[in-house]
Amino acid sequence: MSGREKTTGRVTIPTDIDVVPETIEVMKLWGADAIRDCDGTEFPQQLARTGAKVYATYYTTRKDNAWAERNPDEVQQCYLMTGFHMSAGEEMKIPLLQGISPELVQINLRDDPYRWWEIIDRTSGAILPPDEWRYDETSVTIPRPRPYHEYTVSFLAYLIWDPVHMYNAVVNGWENFEKQRTFDVRQPKTRAHSMRRLRNFLEANPQVNVVRFTTFFHQFTLVFDELRREKYVDWYGYSASVSPYILERFEKEAGYAFRPEYIIDEGYYNNQYRVPRREYLDFMAFQRREVAALAREMVDICHEYGKEAMMFLGDHFIGTEPYMEEFSTIGMDAVVGSVGNGSTLRLISDIQGVRYTEGRFLPYFFPDTFKPGGDPVREAKENWLCARRAILRSPVDRIGYGGYLKLALEFPDFVDYVAKVCDEFRTLYDKVKGAKPFCFAKIAVLNCWGKMRSWGCHMVHHALYQKQNYSYAGVFEILSGAPYAVDFLSFDDVLENPDRLSEYDILMNVGGEETAHTGGACLENAGLVSALRGFIARGGGFVGVGQPFGHRWQGHVLQLSQALGVEYENGDTLGYDKYNWEEKPHFITADISDIDFGEGMRGIYALPGADVLAVRDLSVQLAANSCEKGRAVYIGGLPYSPQNARLLHRALLWTCGREKDILTWGTDNPHVDVHAYLDQQIYAICNNSYLPQSAEVYTREGAHFNVDLSEGELRWGEIPAE
Amino acid sequence: MSGREKTTGRVTIPTDIDVVPETIEVMKLWGADAIRDCDGTEFPQQLARTGAKVYATYYTTRKDNAWAERNPDEVQQCYLMTGFHMSAGEEMKIPLLQGISPELVQINLRDDPYRWWEIIDRTSGAILPPDEWRYDETSVTIPRPRPYHEYTVSFLAYLIWDPVHMYNAVVNGWENFEKQRTFDVRQPKTRAHSMRRLRNFLEANPQVNVVRFTTFFHQFTLVFDELRREKYVDWYGYSASVSPYILERFEKEAGYAFRPEYIIDEGYYNNQYRVPRREYLDFMAFQRREVAALAREMVDICHEYGKEAMMFLGDHFIGTEPYMEEFSTIGMDAVVGSVGNGSTLRLISDIQGVRYTEGRFLPYFFPDTFKPGGDPVREAKENWLCARRAILRSPVDRIGYGGYLKLALEFPDFVDYVAKVCDEFRTLYDKVKGAKPFCFAKIAVLNCWGKMRSWGCHMVHHALYQKQNYSYAGVFEILSGAPYAVDFLSFDDVLENPDRLSEYDILMNVGGEETAHTGGACLENAGLVSALRGFIARGGGFVGVGQPFGHRWQGHVLQLSQALGVEYENGDTLGYDKYNWEEKPHFITADISDIDFGEGMRGIYALPGADVLAVRDLSVQLAANSCEKGRAVYIGGLPYSPQNARLLHRALLWTCGREKDILTWGTDNPHVDVHAYLDQQIYAICNNSYLPQSAEVYTREGAHFNVDLSEGELRWGEIPAE
Repeated sequence: MSGREKTTGRVTIPTDIDVVPETIEVMKLWGADAIRDCDGTEFPQQLARTGAKVYATYYTTRKDNAWAERNPDEVQQCYLMTGFHMSAGEEMKIPLLQGISPELVQINLRDDPYRWWEIIDRTSGAILPPDEWRYDETSVTIPRPRPYHEYTVSFLAYLIWDPVHMYNAVVNGWENFEKQRTFDVRQPKTRAHSMRRLRNFLEANPQVNVVRFTTFFHQFTLVFDELRREKYVDWYGYSASVSPYILERFEKEAGYAFRPEYIIDEGYYNNQYRVPRREYLDFMAFQRREVAALAREMVDICHEYGKEAMMFLGDHFIGTEPYMEEFSTIGMDAVVGSVGNGSTLRLISDIQGVRYTEGRFLPYFFPDTFKPGGDPVREAKENWLCARRAILRSPVDRIGYGGYLKLALEFPDFVDYVAKVCDEFRTLYDKVKGAKPFCFAKIAVLNCWGKMRSWGCHMVHHALYQKQNYSYAGVFEILSGAPYAVDFLSFDDVLENPDRLSEYDILMNVGGEETAHTGGACLENAGLVSALRGFIARGGGFVGVGQPFGHRWQGHVLQLSQALGVEYENGDTLGYDKYNWEEKPHFITADISDIDFGEGMRGIYALPGADVLAVRDLSVQLAANSCEKGRAVYIGGLPYSPQNARLLHRALLWTCGREKDILTWGTDNPHVDVHAYLDQQIYAICNNSYLPQSAEVYTREGAHFNVDLSEGELRWGEIPAE
Repeated sequence: MSGREKTTGRVTIPTDIDVVPETIEVMKLWGADAIRDCDGTEFPQQLARTGAKVYATYYTTRKDNAWAERNPDEVQQCYLMTGFHMSAGEEMKIPLLQGISPELVQINLRDDPYRWWEIIDRTSGAILPPDEWRYDETSVTIPRPRPYHEYTVSFLAYLIWDPVHMYNAVVNGWENFEKQRTFDVRQPKTRAHSMRRLRNFLEANPQVNVVRFTTFFHQFTLVFDELRREKYVDWYGYSASVSPYILERFEKEAGYAFRPEYIIDEGYYNNQYRVPRREYLDFMAFQRREVAALAREMVDICHEYGKEAMMFLGDHFIGTEPYMEEFSTIGMDAVVGSVGNGSTLRLISDIQGVRYTEGRFLPYFFPDTFKPGGDPVREAKENWLCARRAILRSPVDRIGYGGYLKLALEFPDFVDYVAKVCDEFRTLYDKVKGAKPFCFAKIAVLNCWGKMRSWGCHMVHHALYQKQNYSYAGVFEILSGAPYAVDFLSFDDVLENPDRLSEYDILMNVGGEETAHTGGACLENAGLVSALRGFIARGGGFVGVGQPFGHRWQGHVLQLSQALGVEYENGDTLGYDKYNWEEKPHFITADISDIDFGEGMRGIYALPGADVLAVRDLSVQLAANSCEKGRAVYIGGLPYSPQNARLLHRALLWTCGREKDILTWGTDNPHVDVHAYLDQQIYAICNNSYLPQSAEVYTREGAHFNVDLSEGELRWGEIPAE
């Protein structure tokens, strides 16, 4: 962080009633210009005089148990499915809440179960007619089940404890507190009440400049078991956004009857690995429209009181997914979200339709890190260097921290490191905000979800590792800081306008077979697959990772196997002899050895003519192939690492025939990136590692020089006029 | 091989015109009583005087090029599919023989291509109508293909070189020989000719006692590429059993129109991993009936001349699969087959409907093994110890060797070892033939094929290793020598008579998801799945290996996951937290550590309540679970090894609640087996290893003693009367 200059602004810090003088000191040190209030305390009036903006967290769906208790019919609801229960042929009873926390939910018997529940014979797939079952307060009874068939019950339940509140209480071991009940702002009584409640809040808190909604109306799916352990989580899940009130309105709009199965989805709850059905997409679209309209009312009220409205990206954000067109109609001023890595930074910074975005950086000032022996500086470095790659491509407008400031103050190294980060961020922001970073090519990432899951593909819970997905999520982490323009397109986007592909240089598809990431039965649509093949044949690039476009249909598993030059062995082709196993030298691997394919893929073999670049344990992990005028690269898996980022860069350049560009705006050291901003005539040389690095830097064609960078250094240079 | 006694008979050896005295010497040494003639030579008349039976190899479909050339319309045919060809939207030409040896096949333009070929749009799945394509001598032209769709051509070709003859010629580097053309005995002219030809042969060769048919009428699928490399092989494949003559008769019987796709099957040629379609099953049944009737005619002719008829299990054996009911109607005297391991031994020895079976043991007396530095004794030991396990359960009636006797004579150690094997075999046979070996339980192996693929499940080519299947094939190798009665049932068998399951103690299902081994869409049949669940619930055992009953349907991948207590993670359940990972001590693993699961399975997690016995790299590889009155064991993969045989034995005993039987008819050493024959009041203690072994032997309940066995020793004991 050489060449550091002292600047101020664009930084938010937390405060507390007991650290007023320290808050003022940290504000100066970090150049902070905004303060987050603290949950459940009075705002320190002394801080109002600092001129800093004041953020106030606002919960639309909880922190008003009196209301929730007076209006039990408008408590929030969710759809749940029981486990699978096998019949022995005699009358059977299915307990509804087995394996589900009774603190979290309460069965909804208020709305007619015969209308809103569904008992499914999961062996035959048939729905059990209402006259073949009955219910009581805890269970469903099937008097005459078919022997040895399995049955499930899909039922509605009230969320009698807010799932995030429960999570915080359990994780932090809270004692002696009141469980916050939820209420559904979408329903008429609560809606009217909530608007009054927001006005009351604004009137009672004149010091607040920014209302930080946490969040709006519907919690992503988060269920706990009887032992208070997390049972199910889906950061994008809609199953807690339901109620008969909402569903009846949906039926009216959709023109067809709602079925619980549209939400339950065999117990998979339409998570992002599932190929979404039309009815679920319809329901999501309906919810987004309704939520946006209602959120707009609240935002308008904030504006009426002269306050800004900010949305937290998470918790009750279902229906306000920022990448969908409805979002910009809300009129929100800002979005703030947690930054776990580069992908989650882009999840925030790429949002359109707000005036500014803000990233909440790690570590939170919580006792898990800020304890004797803790190393918050290391965590902060990891977080910053990871996120900085992405900020250089698409900056958030502000950064900030959360937690208990008092804890951070006990780590002066940390306070100093963050001061440097804040300065570096401001310098960076001043230089690159609004600038278009140089991109080698334009990439379309294709899957069933498209824009809706931009940067969040494969994410089950916010930025959390999964053994089954890090080899795929790594690709997006690489792209979040890579010199490429990246769009996320759905198959429907392509079908609506196949010409749209011509805007792109490269297609990518990443994931396992028979998932929404690769397409499943969508790939039986000849219009879709021929559009993809045509794109490549006409000269487009294609990078496929895992089991790209993987669906068993008409002689292929990988539907673009002919372009990729590889196929997946599922047993069906064991009779075919495979002779193409020899690893060949290639541009893509020219300066890379010992590649980490993460979990890699099993059972991939190369077709004749393809160039095999890497084989592990008798499975091809990397291959390159030409197909008519286009080129394609297959990769078995690609966790994030500097070397893999370089590998993908080389692969992407090769697919679009720009091999020579490897000597432009880059370096010979995978730990050191170069980001160029041609209109601004500047570039950044960026050491992404925790060690000093030396690198040969390539700027414009033919120009290069050597640099030595200190640990994590970001160095700016000017592009001389030609 | 202590306690060896000199005996004679039950052994066949090869001979040649240049080793007559040596043949007589080896006959004495090995106690051989039959001699195989040598292909293409005169039979040495001196040997006729030895009293040995004389076998003569007889080729029904080749070795008569004059006939084949005079009757090109009755040359054998096969269905082939071209590769996938992508259209650019303009007229396209698909070369038919690209990638296929022109020495092997010739396109059939004699029968109307518009009737017998099929051009399929593999992107949409649609058949191209005849007016949208044309053909010439080498290709098919599609004037107006849909842009960027892929097309394949399914066409008929003549087999102008017998595939096995080609294989032998290529592998042995033959030069200056005539390629043997094929002819189709099923067709009228060739049928009449073939019957005459057989009579002529029998009349011209009075010294022959046994006509060894190699084989009957249709070669299993075996295709070579332009470089004479094997391109595709399926030991059970029917694609070379077709001709318009046959197909028209099939149509008449089946009552519906034939489609080339019934054979082509998207290019997968209905190999045993594919869930068979009804039409293919119909076609197989039709072929078996027709082939059996025609084979019977030939067998009758042999009998008329006082000769025995023996069938080689392989090559042109399509339609004579010995496990189907038609087989016994042929009236064959014997079957001979190659013994690669225990499974292939059982493939021969379990055949019903013949007077005797014979196993051809390894190594063949060929120069690849019998060369300076070669170790034929080692190969013979491996083969014998592997096969002996299976012989002790179900003996072949004879053993034999093949190749050039002259080569074997140069290895006196080998000659001596085989002499011991022959004596051991005869002793063993005398004791156990007709005896019922003691079985702990009765097992039904379930898959789409059932009896048809008994002992050959997962076999692509005869006994050949495949990385993708050795972890499954190993289960059958274990069972081939294990103290259990094993039947192979098809799903259709269960559907026809669900009560049939009650004959068994344990169900097994072995293989990868969405294959014929595990069931695919057949598992959407509620009658089938509820029958399986009912069997377990009523107290049956279940052992599942790999992705047993794996088909994505109604919330499960493994359709019996609730019984197994494990499920496969395909991404759809990443949102569910999994807490059951701790390995527990268990009866199954009580005396076993460091288990080899072969390829094992990725992504298997345990359900709550199941006992996890082994986890590798975050995937459960071994688990035990109770389900109502039944018990189930999950295993990720199980290559053959003595320890894995023991593991499976323990697992099987546990599933049927017979844990205490581990101290009956067994040992404490995985290398040492005990086989008991209660009616005969004898038992065999068998050292399956190449090293001396010590073991505690358990006979009847409570009785046990220690033995020291020499390398590979088989020791017999008597069961005292109680």
